[in-house]
Amino acid sequence: MEWETMARELSQTTDTKIVLLVMDGVGGLPVDGKTELETARKPNLDALAARGVCGLSDPVFMGITPGSGPAHLALFGYDPLRYRLGRGILEALGSGVEVGRDDLVARGNFATLKDGLVVDRRAGRIPTEENIRICEHLNARLPRREEAAVRVFPGKEHRFVARFSAEGLSDALTDADPQKDGRPPVPTAPLGPEADKASGIVNRFLDDVAAALENEPKANTALLRGFSKFPSIPTMPELFKVRPAAIANYPMYKGLARLLGMEVMDVGGGTAGLFDSLEKSYAGHDFFYIHYKKTDSAGEDGNFAAKVAAIEELDAHIPRLLALRPDVLVVTSDHSTPSLLKGHSWHPNPFLLVSATAGVDDARVFTERACAGGLLGRFRSLYAMPLMLAHALKLKKFGA
Amino acid sequence: MEWETMARELSQTTDTKIVLLVMDGVGGLPVDGKTELETARKPNLDALAARGVCGLSDPVFMGITPGSGPAHLALFGYDPLRYRLGRGILEALGSGVEVGRDDLVARGNFATLKDGLVVDRRAGRIPTEENIRICEHLNARLPRREEAAVRVFPGKEHRFVARFSAEGLSDALTDADPQKDGRPPVPTAPLGPEADKASGIVNRFLDDVAAALENEPKANTALLRGFSKFPSIPTMPELFKVRPAAIANYPMYKGLARLLGMEVMDVGGGTAGLFDSLEKSYAGHDFFYIHYKKTDSAGEDGNFAAKVAAIEELDAHIPRLLALRPDVLVVTSDHSTPSLLKGHSWHPNPFLLVSATAGVDDARVFTERACAGGLLGRFRSLYAMPLMLAHALKLKKFGA
Repeated sequence: MEWETMARELSQTTDTKIVLLVMDGVGGLPVDGKTELETARKPNLDALAARGVCGLSDPVFMGITPGSGPAHLALFGYDPLRYRLGRGILEALGSGVEVGRDDLVARGNFATLKDGLVVDRRAGRIPTEENIRICEHLNARLPRREEAAVRVFPGKEHRFVARFSAEGLSDALTDADPQKDGRPPVPTAPLGPEADKASGIVNRFLDDVAAALENEPKANTALLRGFSKFPSIPTMPELFKVRPAAIANYPMYKGLARLLGMEVMDVGGGTAGLFDSLEKSYAGHDFFYIHYKKTDSAGEDGNFAAKVAAIEELDAHIPRLLALRPDVLVVTSDHSTPSLLKGHSWHPNPFLLVSATAGVDDARVFTERACAGGLLGRFRSLYAMPLMLAHALKLKKFGA
Repeated sequence: MEWETMARELSQTTDTKIVLLVMDGVGGLPVDGKTELETARKPNLDALAARGVCGLSDPVFMGITPGSGPAHLALFGYDPLRYRLGRGILEALGSGVEVGRDDLVARGNFATLKDGLVVDRRAGRIPTEENIRICEHLNARLPRREEAAVRVFPGKEHRFVARFSAEGLSDALTDADPQKDGRPPVPTAPLGPEADKASGIVNRFLDDVAAALENEPKANTALLRGFSKFPSIPTMPELFKVRPAAIANYPMYKGLARLLGMEVMDVGGGTAGLFDSLEKSYAGHDFFYIHYKKTDSAGEDGNFAAKVAAIEELDAHIPRLLALRPDVLVVTSDHSTPSLLKGHSWHPNPFLLVSATAGVDDARVFTERACAGGLLGRFRSLYAMPLMLAHALKLKKFGA
């Protein structure tokens, strides 16, 4: 029996509330002997570690560096080895694009084509208003073809989402993107005969776009990547009988949350906006996913000091969260992003759980090293969800 | 998706080098309050523990005592629950016997038959030169039969390998070995109808051998066990895109290494011979498996002091290894062999990893107890390979 089957059988709705605070990429590596978490002044997080129990979690398994998709899936109780999500669908859902069962979606860039070469894959990062105008133009002017209905949706700057609606479209397609500037455009290619139809439709669309935009100074062609369809995945309300709210700023995380049946809340600017949104949505939900991006961005930039500052900034807001008195509070990450490596890594996530039933351990600070000695030990992130549900008394007994 | 599929997808060749030093059976149990590792003076290994991170690994899972085959398979990244290797094939490959897809091999003993009973299963441990003479005699004189080509290959003392070449030979055969002295010889028996052909061939061979050796004073019959065929197993270069070298003295470990696509290096005598070989092969490979047998042999003998001495002897050579500056160094074992138990055990292996991306933990010595509190936690040995590849930057990101 798998955890998913068990979850359907054992989960129950209660009045208790769970807050899962994801400090994206917070785990790190020492620089001059100390990690980012060991360097940051974070009295509130350390006080939580002293009150709760700690551990280390592997998003997939030891040694595997995950993308944000699989790493988040695991945290939400879905086996990332079972569900693989295309980046296109996450981006589309996160941008509020409706995606149906017969739709194929992809992430797009407007780009600059000159003398047969893609000279700028981001079209000089055209302003978002330009993008909106161009998408309206395309949606109005592109030739209507019998084979499929096509629509583009503007994103920020040069980014857009393309949606192809027709029966029998496979997403087994290569990216239509030369990946580097100075190369000729590449069409998409089918990875198997089942994708022949989709590949024809996509490539005709790309030709139509280039024709429709030939007079644009910068955004005169389009690139597409991450072709994907709506995956078949059970929702969190279905599996866990929770009413989940997602408090996140970035399209990908919002997209994933929507896919899993979370209600995606409005979030204002800045770190305070996350906690404003939490307060507003608190009465109507019982599971809260808060996504804090700054730690990951600083890690990706290799900026140790900025990551330390991001940890300290978040720490200052913890009292607002505690004022709501959640029954279960978990602070962890989807994956580590050590400044030293300037990217996601395979290192396990520091994991901190506070609840009336947490038990006790010797972790007194929230750091990788203290978590290594914690009561929770080292475990796959997949088990974070059963653990949170259990502490919220949302899981019945297994077997007699 | 399994690790093996993932490995094929994510692994990449880099210039970085991994050294996996297997101190066979190094984990132990306390005698007078201290284990072998806690008793040994081993400043170099302890310094490595202080620099790196530690943990405990279970070869199969908690409570399972593995043979050397499954324990090593796990360390090399192969699920020991999926691949089961016959001892015959490991012995054959380790002895340099060529084994093809249509070959059936077994480990053999020359033995002494008297009045219808096997009175000495090792034929008085005849000298190896006698063995060589007898094998030559058999290969020249055994009756040629249409059904299969048979050849014997001498090993040390009374040991040999038998190879049967014919289409359709199954290895589902019981051992042709009475297991104890003073019993009558036993023929092999098929474990299913698919092995009828092989069983007939093997038993006629045993009769032929007894007839050909009837005038020998000691080695006048043969016993066979561990029937096996060449298993279908992907190689390490295939799965992990590494160029692995095996530095080992004993046939079984060399056999396993060859089976997995490692290049088996020449190794001179003594512990120094291992490190001479490492130095010689260092430029041409990027993964090095070093097998140190003495710790296991002493443990099997129940000789606590000898095991302590074996640990100290190995420790003295660590500086030679460090002089090569491997990017990733792991010191661990395939399984534990506590002197107290005089054999393999189910206890987890102390595991030590040193690399620039290792992180930090509080382990300051290389002992079972210090490893229990290490950052790596407790994990299945199967994850040692993804961990080593990750630290060598030989694994790409999983998912978007």
